Amino acid sequence: MSEPIRIIQYGLGAIGRATAQLALTKPNMQLVGAVDLDPKIVGRDLGEVLGLDKKLGVIVSDKPTVLFGQTQADAVVHCTSSGFLDVYEQILEIIRAGFHCVTSCEEAMFPWYRYPKLAAKLDDLCITKEVVMVGTGVNPGFVMDTLALVLTAACQRVQTIRVARVVDVATRREALQRKVGVGLTRDEFQKLAQDKKIRHVGLTESLAFLADALGWTLDDISEEIEPVIADKPIKTKFFSVKPGDVAGVHQFARGVSGGKERLQLDLQMAVGAPNPRDEIDIAGEPPLKLVLQGGVAGDVATPALLINTLARVVEARPGLHTMRTLGLPRIVS
Amino acid sequence: MSEPIRIIQYGLGAIGRATAQLALTKPNMQLVGAVDLDPKIVGRDLGEVLGLDKKLGVIVSDKPTVLFGQTQADAVVHCTSSGFLDVYEQILEIIRAGFHCVTSCEEAMFPWYRYPKLAAKLDDLCITKEVVMVGTGVNPGFVMDTLALVLTAACQRVQTIRVARVVDVATRREALQRKVGVGLTRDEFQKLAQDKKIRHVGLTESLAFLADALGWTLDDISEEIEPVIADKPIKTKFFSVKPGDVAGVHQFARGVSGGKERLQLDLQMAVGAPNPRDEIDIAGEPPLKLVLQGGVAGDVATPALLINTLARVVEARPGLHTMRTLGLPRIVS
Repeated sequence: MSEPIRIIQYGLGAIGRATAQLALTKPNMQLVGAVDLDPKIVGRDLGEVLGLDKKLGVIVSDKPTVLFGQTQADAVVHCTSSGFLDVYEQILEIIRAGFHCVTSCEEAMFPWYRYPKLAAKLDDLCITKEVVMVGTGVNPGFVMDTLALVLTAACQRVQTIRVARVVDVATRREALQRKVGVGLTRDEFQKLAQDKKIRHVGLTESLAFLADALGWTLDDISEEIEPVIADKPIKTKFFSVKPGDVAGVHQFARGVSGGKERLQLDLQMAVGAPNPRDEIDIAGEPPLKLVLQGGVAGDVATPALLINTLARVVEARPGLHTMRTLGLPRIVS
Repeated sequence: MSEPIRIIQYGLGAIGRATAQLALTKPNMQLVGAVDLDPKIVGRDLGEVLGLDKKLGVIVSDKPTVLFGQTQADAVVHCTSSGFLDVYEQILEIIRAGFHCVTSCEEAMFPWYRYPKLAAKLDDLCITKEVVMVGTGVNPGFVMDTLALVLTAACQRVQTIRVARVVDVATRREALQRKVGVGLTRDEFQKLAQDKKIRHVGLTESLAFLADALGWTLDDISEEIEPVIADKPIKTKFFSVKPGDVAGVHQFARGVSGGKERLQLDLQMAVGAPNPRDEIDIAGEPPLKLVLQGGVAGDVATPALLINTLARVVEARPGLHTMRTLGLPRIVS
């Protein structure tokens, strides 16, 4: 067995905590630092913050610069925000400190689409510092993009790919229910959607990643968002929804080439969404239809993808990677 | 666009021909040679052999040594036999000539299980000659092994994996129907199965590949084979099956660790097999159930995997690879 990967967990929200807990169970990984800005947990032992019955000797710091300078680490697992611009400086600091970085930032899954110049700059810096950076998670990062791409390995030709993900958020955490607009009126939803305060981030990144990996030049990429309207009263642990109000969000991303829609990603996240599943439909030779029955639970799968991808990161050549350019995704034992 | 990959197609049976035809459609690939021993096609132009309406300027040769010495090529796509020992000398010759090799030989998908010494020798030779060798196909190579492995990337923990593949061979080619025993009596089946003349080759290789990639040490790997018995008369294009006679084959491979069955591969290939599909069931966190509805058509998907994998082979480090150690499987455009 090789030396364990020494990890700093950056961001201790729901996903960050679950990721830290998962890292603790992996024999080849070791938690050596933690960063978060929440004054309620800064200065406390990470074991306590994670609700373990033991201390870990890792104190939560709100000063990443200081911590990075003092800590012998290999990699940072970064779980703070969805927007690439919001995390860019944080990630620069991680890379400058000489650490690999795996981030759950949705837009970082394929930053080459919206921010090609910043992505190129980050790629250069990674190469200079001889580290690897990648963005991943269950979505974007796996079910609507990487898995669909892997499936094309069995195809001689692919005409179109359609991926649908239906998530029943009834049993999910409050922050997610809030993020998809559960309990809002239509008007409130439209206003917040317009301000990009309600939405799943990353659908377009998944689509751009797929197009790039398939070598498809798209004439147009478009995104749509609409509310899912409740047709009967719904109560979750956190919200009450009246009939006619919002039960969740329905988003589409579409990629058009030569006047033809070749890629379509269809994401529905709503309370009581029927037949939750992930579905990949390839029109090609052979045609393929994959269904993940019940779907893939994001709260469990995203920490898994972060930790499992970290094992691929430490063996990759330096640079800003995507899930396409790392080794075969798989569980780290 | 980089230089095209110059390919010699070795073996022009059904799969070899389909693979050569697929290579012809790929802008980054070029067919520069063909090998087969069948006197009916030796000396003829490959275009004619493939049923194209044009010559390709590639003459089918039955003398690989001579051809290899005279041909500027990068890789050989090898489609001759299922058994590693049957193809070993052929592959040695390919590697010695300095060509990469992608083979459909089922046992070559994970030769480390049955033939670790020969595999190590081949690995050494590949490194010396600075070439890459890998065995792949739809099964073994993809649906019962690589795809299941990729799916574990979304898991924090995996307790057991069960993969089932059900193929209705009614519409498949004669050789495949014959291979799975269609139309035999029970006694004929048992005799031929005992002599290993009826069976799908590679199920154990898929299982050993999975165990290795998951880092699981198995106490026992076992394989079973039994006939699927027709309960009514069945007629295919090639065979007639009486009730009580054999409609196909049902095979299991099982991997046991600590007294517990942790891996099970269940393959049914029979005329009229109900609900054809590929199914991957992971008991883990989260549990995952994947279904490829209708299954993946092997006659189309195996050539796809050979050609798509070739694109990963030319970028890999020298050595004897498996699908685990090459880059992300995906279609080559």
